[in-house]
Amino acid sequence: MTPQERVRAAFAQLALSERPEAWITLRDLPSVLAEAVALEARLAAGELLPLAGKLLAVKDNVDVAGLPTTAGCPTYAYHPEASAPAVQRLVDAGAIVLGKTNLDQFATGLVGTRSPYGAVRDVRDPSLVSGGSSSGSAVVVALGIADLAIGTDTAGSGRVPAAFQQIVGVKPTYGLVPTAGVVPACRSFDCVTIFARTLSEGRRAIRIMSDPVLPADAPLAAPPRPVVAVPATLTGLSDSYAEAFEQAVKSLEAAGVVVRAIRLEPFLAAAKLLYEGGFVAERYAAVGPFVDGGPDGIDPTVGAIIRKARDVPAHVLVSDSECLAELRREAMAGWGDADALLLPTAPFQPTIAAVTADPIGVNARLGTYTNFCNLFGLSAVAVPAPGIGVQVVARGFADAVAADIAALIVGETPAPVSSGLPLLVVGAHLSGQPLNHQLTSAGARLRGAVRTAPEYRMYALPSGKPGLVRVPSGGASILGEVWELPPATLGPFLAALPSPMALGKVRLDDGTSVTGFLCEQAGVDGAPDITGHGGWLAYLESR
Amino acid sequence: MTPQERVRAAFAQLALSERPEAWITLRDLPSVLAEAVALEARLAAGELLPLAGKLLAVKDNVDVAGLPTTAGCPTYAYHPEASAPAVQRLVDAGAIVLGKTNLDQFATGLVGTRSPYGAVRDVRDPSLVSGGSSSGSAVVVALGIADLAIGTDTAGSGRVPAAFQQIVGVKPTYGLVPTAGVVPACRSFDCVTIFARTLSEGRRAIRIMSDPVLPADAPLAAPPRPVVAVPATLTGLSDSYAEAFEQAVKSLEAAGVVVRAIRLEPFLAAAKLLYEGGFVAERYAAVGPFVDGGPDGIDPTVGAIIRKARDVPAHVLVSDSECLAELRREAMAGWGDADALLLPTAPFQPTIAAVTADPIGVNARLGTYTNFCNLFGLSAVAVPAPGIGVQVVARGFADAVAADIAALIVGETPAPVSSGLPLLVVGAHLSGQPLNHQLTSAGARLRGAVRTAPEYRMYALPSGKPGLVRVPSGGASILGEVWELPPATLGPFLAALPSPMALGKVRLDDGTSVTGFLCEQAGVDGAPDITGHGGWLAYLESR
Repeated sequence: MTPQERVRAAFAQLALSERPEAWITLRDLPSVLAEAVALEARLAAGELLPLAGKLLAVKDNVDVAGLPTTAGCPTYAYHPEASAPAVQRLVDAGAIVLGKTNLDQFATGLVGTRSPYGAVRDVRDPSLVSGGSSSGSAVVVALGIADLAIGTDTAGSGRVPAAFQQIVGVKPTYGLVPTAGVVPACRSFDCVTIFARTLSEGRRAIRIMSDPVLPADAPLAAPPRPVVAVPATLTGLSDSYAEAFEQAVKSLEAAGVVVRAIRLEPFLAAAKLLYEGGFVAERYAAVGPFVDGGPDGIDPTVGAIIRKARDVPAHVLVSDSECLAELRREAMAGWGDADALLLPTAPFQPTIAAVTADPIGVNARLGTYTNFCNLFGLSAVAVPAPGIGVQVVARGFADAVAADIAALIVGETPAPVSSGLPLLVVGAHLSGQPLNHQLTSAGARLRGAVRTAPEYRMYALPSGKPGLVRVPSGGASILGEVWELPPATLGPFLAALPSPMALGKVRLDDGTSVTGFLCEQAGVDGAPDITGHGGWLAYLESR
Repeated sequence: MTPQERVRAAFAQLALSERPEAWITLRDLPSVLAEAVALEARLAAGELLPLAGKLLAVKDNVDVAGLPTTAGCPTYAYHPEASAPAVQRLVDAGAIVLGKTNLDQFATGLVGTRSPYGAVRDVRDPSLVSGGSSSGSAVVVALGIADLAIGTDTAGSGRVPAAFQQIVGVKPTYGLVPTAGVVPACRSFDCVTIFARTLSEGRRAIRIMSDPVLPADAPLAAPPRPVVAVPATLTGLSDSYAEAFEQAVKSLEAAGVVVRAIRLEPFLAAAKLLYEGGFVAERYAAVGPFVDGGPDGIDPTVGAIIRKARDVPAHVLVSDSECLAELRREAMAGWGDADALLLPTAPFQPTIAAVTADPIGVNARLGTYTNFCNLFGLSAVAVPAPGIGVQVVARGFADAVAADIAALIVGETPAPVSSGLPLLVVGAHLSGQPLNHQLTSAGARLRGAVRTAPEYRMYALPSGKPGLVRVPSGGASILGEVWELPPATLGPFLAALPSPMALGKVRLDDGTSVTGFLCEQAGVDGAPDITGHGGWLAYLESR
């Protein structure tokens, strides 16, 4: 489908859909088409645009140049001159903005009903809430109108609506995607997120939106047999969700994951701090003076929450921060060395009527399993599972681990990455060989099998490992694997390398070079020459 | 001097000194002597105790098991069961605690006069303040009674008294030394510090007190020709201080430092936030409820500051945090790629009478050059210079850079460190050679010259660099240098390594092995054998 065809298909879908409340500002067909035409010209000129023709919806608390930002409040609206960097990076990669989506006002809510632009209804059952606060963004992706949508997530706003709309919601580690050009909710915890229908599309968008701030030892992948923690007991789940979550855990086990039960209590205690303590003062700092002015169009529930936050004393915020630090220590001690934590994304999906009857209480319960995540600096990916939305939560900057494990749930192949340092292995570090765990436990990821240039000879060393030596003539091409390592892990790896092994540049048969295992000439004297086997595994099989 | 002799000398000095107000709790000679006797037995049994017989004074807001902690308020006193980890680590290394020292109550002040245990007077001129809040700790080190003293530093309390008492004050990066067992002042910014008479003693104590949390890319040393920023203009300095600071800058230049003027305004603006904004709420969170109870012994100035902090709204703290983040960006942009910032530690040293006349105003002005440091997460070392105390401020976790540059001011040799990854260089990376800057700019530090085992041959490669190859027989010993690299820098270093160079284990003539530069055998074919010169520099000279 060309970009123009994609745009026409989206507007056709839009005309059929019965969720007009999902949008606050929708661009018109001619101007979106004009962008598709321009994009096609750039593609024809040979530009590389990885998101060419992908249609993007943007939550209306994130700036898009040329469109008003309302944050769900018409009197708050302003006209930004520039798009938020998170938006601009997707547009630069070829995405086309369709419009701005409805939200719980000032991103305050998990229901999707707190908006003067209308309560956003679930895609399948209009009596149910869509989930919020990124309600419109999730709905237009679920409807197939947009391919990608930007949300924000302080307490779960990028995950709860993904769960209810049965799509993917990727919430990166705080600080990874810039929040410039975003109306703050709680600035210390706000994250920009992505909704997509497939995990790989969501991951790709997050990579494009991210700053290059990944720590050098951030893992690039989940290990082959990850350990996933699950709550020993679950509270507040509807019966159908409880059963569906149990099934999701069983499928993960069937996919090779080691499941371990942990106490969820310190996580849940932190969750309560986000709305019942001092942190709400951040909401007042963001929009309080505006709300105090008594403008039209303030949602009554949102207005009450923000006005109440004015009188919180600073020393309560301080005590809560200290309490949070203590809970985090306790929670992460229980987490231990697990690679991730699997949780329901929300405990149940309420009707709009139930929210109207108890707007604060129902909303608070919806955040049970999402609230703590940004308080603890964690990353998370929400994905659909049969009968429930689940989330894989990983440590800060271990976003790749969360996504790899989520891929097991939705049955997608992990996306390739390229942020690591490539390392050629030819022996004991190959997949399935005894030292391969050194790579996987460091968060390395297999890039693929390669052949060296025909300039090497391989020897079977007395240590039981192979030695690769470049020779001026008479060499052969040797089979190996290239792995990508988190840059910080290469140092310790090298420090532990025993004589006569060395790391240097190895030439590949495609003419490139890559850092790889070599052997000192002095180390191969007298060792059997096994070059003829073409690689270590073939030699091992021949014995 | 044996530990017992050292203890007797300290008590003799104590009897002569006329600053009894420096102590809140002083241990008696018999019990301190008993510890010295026990220590001598451990030494005789062969224990390694790097601080054996060093006498330690502890600021009375830091717990020492068996002694009360008062924080400068008798009615606040409690009896801790355990010593603070910062204290315990020094004791485990052989230090003997003499007692607990006076301070500005609850560490609230930079003057040393705000204490019901008496105003602590300057060591040389009793009409002058000692500086605070770690007043007693600085004074007992300056008097030669203690060798080391623990202080704390939120706004400058570990540096201002060092400046006035003309000793060394080391303020590590926030988070490096644990603050467990410390009565909080502003918990987000409190650091445990060390006073000593020499920089090397202070550094050694800080190393022993620190958690092993140094990031992998933290520099291990200042570069050989560091760039030091100085303020384009200085405000509030007494005339004699202004002249002395100018002299200090000139001596640094004479010592090979590149001096660069920067705007200090954003640093000074942040300094004001610490006491004039929302952060004082942290002081209320720490001891406010106690002070509200109206106990005896509250210093009137300190009490007024803490009580006032109760009513600060949380949203002001939030706004101030955001303002601080913005000022930090601006300040560090101006800092640029300088290695450190040189500043007066305090702008002037007031009389006790001047502080009594204006307790809040004089105190606030004293913090002009110290307050911003922990707000920005920086490290600092305060050292005496002729006629003034100056501080070298470095980035977070660049504590070694600050200390190395401070060593140039006091004329001490930098202390050896051993936290880096050792790397043997034999050619272009040797000191003074063209690629040596790759090591120094990565924060590496020279460990020393070494010789390889007599198992190597060296070749002059066409690239103009040497190639080292281990040979089964006929090898020689080659001269090189071992450098210590921050672990995280080894990865990029290796990635950039061109063929035919490799990194592997090189054997040294002392029987140990170290990671070092090797050359593939295929890379030396046809290259001149220069082994006979014994090393690359001798070969270069011979040409």
